[in-house]
Amino acid sequence: MCEVSFDVAASELPSLLSERQYAVVATPENPLPLDCGRELAEVTLCYESFGTLNADRDNAVLICHALTGDSHVAGKYDPGDRKPGWWDQAVGPGKAIDTDKYFVLCTNVLGGCQGSTGPASANPATGLPYGPDFPLVTARDMVRAQARLMDQLGIKQLHAVLGGSLGGMQTLQWAVTYPGRVRAILPIGGAGRFHPQGIALNEVQRQAILTDPDYHGGQYYGSKGPVRGLATARMLGMITYRSDESMWRQFGRQVRDGQTELPARYDFDGITYEVESYLRYQGDALVRRFDANSYLYLTKAMDLQDIGRGFSSYEAAHAAIKAKVLCIGIRSDLLFPTYLQRETAELVRAAGGEAEYLEMDSQWGHDAFLVDFHLIAASVKSFLDRT
Amino acid sequence: MCEVSFDVAASELPSLLSERQYAVVATPENPLPLDCGRELAEVTLCYESFGTLNADRDNAVLICHALTGDSHVAGKYDPGDRKPGWWDQAVGPGKAIDTDKYFVLCTNVLGGCQGSTGPASANPATGLPYGPDFPLVTARDMVRAQARLMDQLGIKQLHAVLGGSLGGMQTLQWAVTYPGRVRAILPIGGAGRFHPQGIALNEVQRQAILTDPDYHGGQYYGSKGPVRGLATARMLGMITYRSDESMWRQFGRQVRDGQTELPARYDFDGITYEVESYLRYQGDALVRRFDANSYLYLTKAMDLQDIGRGFSSYEAAHAAIKAKVLCIGIRSDLLFPTYLQRETAELVRAAGGEAEYLEMDSQWGHDAFLVDFHLIAASVKSFLDRT
Repeated sequence: MCEVSFDVAASELPSLLSERQYAVVATPENPLPLDCGRELAEVTLCYESFGTLNADRDNAVLICHALTGDSHVAGKYDPGDRKPGWWDQAVGPGKAIDTDKYFVLCTNVLGGCQGSTGPASANPATGLPYGPDFPLVTARDMVRAQARLMDQLGIKQLHAVLGGSLGGMQTLQWAVTYPGRVRAILPIGGAGRFHPQGIALNEVQRQAILTDPDYHGGQYYGSKGPVRGLATARMLGMITYRSDESMWRQFGRQVRDGQTELPARYDFDGITYEVESYLRYQGDALVRRFDANSYLYLTKAMDLQDIGRGFSSYEAAHAAIKAKVLCIGIRSDLLFPTYLQRETAELVRAAGGEAEYLEMDSQWGHDAFLVDFHLIAASVKSFLDRT
Repeated sequence: MCEVSFDVAASELPSLLSERQYAVVATPENPLPLDCGRELAEVTLCYESFGTLNADRDNAVLICHALTGDSHVAGKYDPGDRKPGWWDQAVGPGKAIDTDKYFVLCTNVLGGCQGSTGPASANPATGLPYGPDFPLVTARDMVRAQARLMDQLGIKQLHAVLGGSLGGMQTLQWAVTYPGRVRAILPIGGAGRFHPQGIALNEVQRQAILTDPDYHGGQYYGSKGPVRGLATARMLGMITYRSDESMWRQFGRQVRDGQTELPARYDFDGITYEVESYLRYQGDALVRRFDANSYLYLTKAMDLQDIGRGFSSYEAAHAAIKAKVLCIGIRSDLLFPTYLQRETAELVRAAGGEAEYLEMDSQWGHDAFLVDFHLIAASVKSFLDRT
């Protein structure tokens, strides 16, 4: 999830109520095999659901979240909550992802830190947090765990899978790994494989965490943890979720209140510009809710993502996709440039599948799928409803 | 200077020989006033020069270097040197910046660490390195120090000033601060003011340095210093000097020799992809030759750059420019997007000045002014020769 610091048009409908639910999808008797060759003997997925599963169990829509997101996609845990879930503008009665029609699910990803099994979870072999002993997980592993939840819920085929960013990666992986289990997919600002500049940006973020003296080789549970390194990583992440255009609009070269551009003595821990202040705020906010090891593992999962793994080529993997595809790109997206989504649609069509490409004309960069959702609300609604 | 790891077309001409020269441009009796209100009682500039100053002393061309560059713009210190200076393809007899015609100068910037006074220099008040007690310096301060060197050399008016990146910022500042002292300027991938995304990227780089436990509040001289933080900063810098397009071409998703994408146990200190390996190499290479405090101060100078400071507006500053201007932008430049150079040319023209904009159609990003100099060699030569 890429938080936004300004208000999006609030829905006038009352918020849904939501609660975290938990499903055990792997046990020592039925471990979850992983792409890295290891397996996890205990996997819990935290999820939230909205709407009602129909008698045929064929109206389920799965939403996959982004890097630092969670299962809390919509609604409030308590009517007094300050903010609803991260995509509340998209999910609810009468909204684009209409909970009057669909049974909407969102799971916290495998490897995450918001209720699902991840590096901060107890390793059953030791009783202590996995930390760096957690295995590498891929988007395919995440999807495998989600498929087990669908099994438990008796959902043989999903009406649709959708999501932005890493969620868009999972969405495409669903259609490749389980072609018979999903009728439509809607990846937004996603990709079938990550691009080298994206890998590079993730690697710098990981280095910022590893450089922090409080990282302690990943065994920092019970101590402070690499909060400064994680904040720095988040600062860079935030830059890639926005655009220069949006930064001009929000901050320009504005000096922070009470500061001067050229003090006689400058402390580099200080802040001169509003844009720096904003990034520091975002960095500090993340460390209060997110585990640094999850950040390492989930950025690595982005890097590793390549739907072509196991196929003769990247192109060949697109022939496996049987779902109807609506690929959405964002004009100003730095992290998942639009050529990636255009290419996905083209490769699916070239392989005989059904795919459309839609571009959001937004200045907000990668975060547009949150900030400017209204630009695609009608298209998302229409795509889901006509499937 | 943004090093490139591949060969640019080697000149067939024998390399020039070069040597570092030093000029004292501020003394306790004649200190250098700075934009921050402080002054420096001792300033040495390290510089290199090529060609011959003519009798009228009006054929001097000043080259300003980028963030981690230095005075060694061309030639070799010794014929056996492995590599010549950083812009050897541009500077030499018969080359675009023709040392048969021009007396070419390049100074290491004030605040740098390659022979000119900077934070690693001894503070005359204490005899110890300044470290964080060094004052903030701006591109205008850098230019003021260079102007004093021109005074010492008896150069009343420069034929031209040019440079890329931070060098492009100094170039524009020359024309604003000393309109009577420069006939032509050629900023490449530069800007009259830095943009908020650029400030944001620099701030993340600084945070990476400050997070390193070996930073010791900037007083690390005589100890290891924040080598890991500086390397991380450089890694991010390198991403902004290139483009996703060039990274696909150089690295794609290629796995490093001997590595596997999905090992059973992964160490986040490890390297999976060639693009990561390249960034680590670049990071490690920089720390061997560059001072972390200079990195902090010079990125801050980029952030602070705004030729409008002291004028009624940013636009108004352009009316001060009397030099002929050739602004060069690079299509794929992430760090100094082309709207900045186009805007400069437009604002100079709007203020009644003479300015052209030229765009390099290069995939190499910001570094194109080094990597793809051949694309603009003829234009640079023609612009200098017809001035």
